[in-house]
Amino acid sequence: MSEASQVQTVWSESELSRLATRAFQGLGLTETDAADVVKILVLADLFGLSTHGLSRIESYGERLLVQGIRARPNITVQAPAPALRLVDGDNGVGPLVGMHALRAAMDAARQCGIGMAFARGSNHFGPISPYSLLAAEEGFASVIGSNATTTIAPWGGSDARLGNSPLGFGVPNPGGSPFLLDMAMSVVARAKVRNALKRGESIPDTWATDDKGRATTDPKAALDGFLLPIGGHKGYGLALLVDMFAGLLSNAAYLTHVKSWVDAPDEPQNLGHFFILIDTRMLGSAQWLSERMMDFAAILHDSPPAVAGKPVIVPGEIELKEMAQQRTTGIVLEAATVALLLQHANA
Amino acid sequence: MSEASQVQTVWSESELSRLATRAFQGLGLTETDAADVVKILVLADLFGLSTHGLSRIESYGERLLVQGIRARPNITVQAPAPALRLVDGDNGVGPLVGMHALRAAMDAARQCGIGMAFARGSNHFGPISPYSLLAAEEGFASVIGSNATTTIAPWGGSDARLGNSPLGFGVPNPGGSPFLLDMAMSVVARAKVRNALKRGESIPDTWATDDKGRATTDPKAALDGFLLPIGGHKGYGLALLVDMFAGLLSNAAYLTHVKSWVDAPDEPQNLGHFFILIDTRMLGSAQWLSERMMDFAAILHDSPPAVAGKPVIVPGEIELKEMAQQRTTGIVLEAATVALLLQHANA
Repeated sequence: MSEASQVQTVWSESELSRLATRAFQGLGLTETDAADVVKILVLADLFGLSTHGLSRIESYGERLLVQGIRARPNITVQAPAPALRLVDGDNGVGPLVGMHALRAAMDAARQCGIGMAFARGSNHFGPISPYSLLAAEEGFASVIGSNATTTIAPWGGSDARLGNSPLGFGVPNPGGSPFLLDMAMSVVARAKVRNALKRGESIPDTWATDDKGRATTDPKAALDGFLLPIGGHKGYGLALLVDMFAGLLSNAAYLTHVKSWVDAPDEPQNLGHFFILIDTRMLGSAQWLSERMMDFAAILHDSPPAVAGKPVIVPGEIELKEMAQQRTTGIVLEAATVALLLQHANA
Repeated sequence: MSEASQVQTVWSESELSRLATRAFQGLGLTETDAADVVKILVLADLFGLSTHGLSRIESYGERLLVQGIRARPNITVQAPAPALRLVDGDNGVGPLVGMHALRAAMDAARQCGIGMAFARGSNHFGPISPYSLLAAEEGFASVIGSNATTTIAPWGGSDARLGNSPLGFGVPNPGGSPFLLDMAMSVVARAKVRNALKRGESIPDTWATDDKGRATTDPKAALDGFLLPIGGHKGYGLALLVDMFAGLLSNAAYLTHVKSWVDAPDEPQNLGHFFILIDTRMLGSAQWLSERMMDFAAILHDSPPAVAGKPVIVPGEIELKEMAQQRTTGIVLEAATVALLLQHANA
């Protein structure tokens, strides 16, 4: 039995958050900053998004150790207009910059009804749905996006020039479950291709192309090639617009200017994000919103399933169920992730 | 030769705008309101989006004549917060309500850096790219959406419960062409299915299902069934979020509450739209933005084409080229559309 297989792999949320906070402190972050990072990554694990959860301590940690990410950044926020915030992440850990930008956008939205934060000088900020949930819990609807390392070819092109930029939305429900949508523009996430490679499995030929733009079932060839966008030119267009908001308008890097953290872990990526938050309390009462949200979900749930026994679901339903379940039974982590957390926590 | 085939089918923009304004006045609108409607529809025709241009005088006109749309609405705008506007379209013609909401959002964005207008009590408001262009010309980046008549089944469901809601984005370029993306959530627009039916052609089986949720190549069966969304659950999720912003949060109708203008032309649809505008002048100088926009487009254009002779394009490029072309050679309309314009203009 390997050492990693003997570690505790089921954790309570509070216990895991304490361990992970100590781990990021071990990597040089202040306790407050580490808690911000852990807030997002533990929510990712609670949602069942383990590829974007605490397992990221591996890549974040490597880059912190080679000073490709700054452990003690000087994050600044400017307000060029009452409802706009410009966040300079100073090359801090992505979820830390993301949390600063989320709070800045909340501040602007509380003042003006809608607020927007642009973040630059950032890194991979985790999945989007945790930010959307935190926003929804405070009454904000959200549109959130980030650019990413270049992995996708332009529609009709033959080399990687744009990232598989994630885009997310959330709408609060004061009396029940919020709607949360968190999607990348590719048919599948790059992490799924990496996991297939790790497991030695082939992939469907609709997921990606090789480096010549030819569809492939080989995950290794796909990682050298390009992910395919949803809806062809539509997914291509959506990915561009996310990069224009997250990168171009935020004064961060964009398209091929974004450095790869795999190829150059010791260099700043200068990733960008955007957070648009809408204060739904300005639009109507909690009861008004809750009634409409319940009715909206009921209309969808009531559509007879196309396949018997597979009822219609709404965005976020799987993640919120997974969170409720893991809050009862404990959060399940891979042994390797726990081993890394313990290693950094005890460093 | 039919009478319709003898009418003038190539028009200058100013000549056509004058005719179309008179036509909407003939349908009962004031000259100012008619000019707002015509602004959007003529831009649609200039972009080559003829299914969403002045040809719409047929359906708009029918509904105005049976008082399903109000010719002289009392459109009101409330400001519940400095950057929010609530527009009640009072069941006016869609592009008229859309123009009021666009101006309201511009007003909010000028004050706060970002502004959002929610419109309710509206109708089909044309395509989105004309609004995005008008916003871009004044320096605003935009996210604009509308809900629509129910034509799509929930992902995994088997009856039509959501609309093929359009979503659009724009980013201005002070020194060149803006980026404009205007997309519905289906693989193709319903109008394309209708056109195939008119021409007696079959459709690819990826476009839509019949009324049992089975893929079909028969456009008539498809019009009785449901359009298929891009990227499966991703397009489904995007369509829902557009409806939540455009319908649920705007206090308009949503999902199955939206009345069909085909089945009930004499009843108000209570469609909703949303307009999020960002004042890019607060983010940097015109030169800064223009340089980044030019660089962004150049990076994409420089990707070697996957198919020789088919260079990579960027969102809006086709529409803006078509506009430049038609501003030189004239706007081409179908004879039937011109005949209807002349009929209402001379009523």
